[in-house]
Amino acid sequence: MYFTYSSKQLEDAVREFSKLPGIGTKTALRLVLHLLKENRESLDHFGNTILRLGTHIRYCKDCMNICDDELCPVCADKRRDHSIICIVENVKDVMIIENTRQYRGVYHVLGGIISPMDGIGPADLNIDSLEARIKRGNIRELILALSATMEGDTTNYYLYRRLSKSIPVISTLARGVSIGDELEFIDEVTLGRSILNRVPFEMNK
Amino acid sequence: MYFTYSSKQLEDAVREFSKLPGIGTKTALRLVLHLLKENRESLDHFGNTILRLGTHIRYCKDCMNICDDELCPVCADKRRDHSIICIVENVKDVMIIENTRQYRGVYHVLGGIISPMDGIGPADLNIDSLEARIKRGNIRELILALSATMEGDTTNYYLYRRLSKSIPVISTLARGVSIGDELEFIDEVTLGRSILNRVPFEMNK
Repeated sequence: MYFTYSSKQLEDAVREFSKLPGIGTKTALRLVLHLLKENRESLDHFGNTILRLGTHIRYCKDCMNICDDELCPVCADKRRDHSIICIVENVKDVMIIENTRQYRGVYHVLGGIISPMDGIGPADLNIDSLEARIKRGNIRELILALSATMEGDTTNYYLYRRLSKSIPVISTLARGVSIGDELEFIDEVTLGRSILNRVPFEMNK
Repeated sequence: MYFTYSSKQLEDAVREFSKLPGIGTKTALRLVLHLLKENRESLDHFGNTILRLGTHIRYCKDCMNICDDELCPVCADKRRDHSIICIVENVKDVMIIENTRQYRGVYHVLGGIISPMDGIGPADLNIDSLEARIKRGNIRELILALSATMEGDTTNYYLYRRLSKSIPVISTLARGVSIGDELEFIDEVTLGRSILNRVPFEMNK
């Protein structure tokens, strides 16, 4: 929808918001007008919080998760089992699995999933850093916790072929996760149980 | 939904986004992760655009619309008819009416609508500035373009009582059947009023 703006600042802000996924011009305008109704401190706080994302966000040098320091809280936690690595597609998946409170190992965030349709290949993912991590030794298990989609299966297959010789056990989430399900829509109980009951990864299964 | 955050900056940003109307924690997280995937310039640009809203946005000294200067583009336009003021609830309504390209007068933004349920009375709206504007003279018509709701009617009634002595003509939006409406889907009140207030049939109109 096209609007006639009375202010260039307003138009700029609406344009920025409407670049976000799932937000059209109408919603963007509503959000910006809401921000303008707030007091000046709230507005400044919002803007500065966004800017701080750029200046302060870092990526964990071990698992590539978003964090504030050199290591994320999970990798920095000595009580976690650092010999088990759970491989996930993105930062959100780490949060979702942490929420189940069932997993005591560490993670590795791929930063995506192999998807030839979207032009995403293994080189676009954090696989080299995973391999380097495994070569440093003491990893006894990899858990493949990717979505049960075709892209997830392709990525599982690729990781298995590339890493299985270096790792004693490669497991995957227990069956119970329906084919076609994406991680973020699975209820916590099912997901928690699927991590506890993880099974050895096998080809053609 | 509660998330376990690996970064305080991330958590702060998600909290800011989820304060916006219609945006829950899950959507907020998706938006923030999207911003983080963008390059650093986009992120900085987004943050700075929000901050500029706070520093640069002004309100037109005549009509109270959002603008970048002392006067909004409509009030600054000498070709507009400054003797007709269209009264609207908010900034968005100005945009919507401007989009019709049918109106050549100016506006006055009330900044809300009288709503005792929400504790909004006349003193909370830009009515004093409207009255001052009328007292400066040369206003021959007020158009009440508020929503056709109980609150809109209440506000219309209040404005009429307060201002009718100072203004030759006070009009309101024509009420009736929308262009494209099928009779069976029109509510009874609108349809009943449209029959009572029927107008002469004209070709090509």
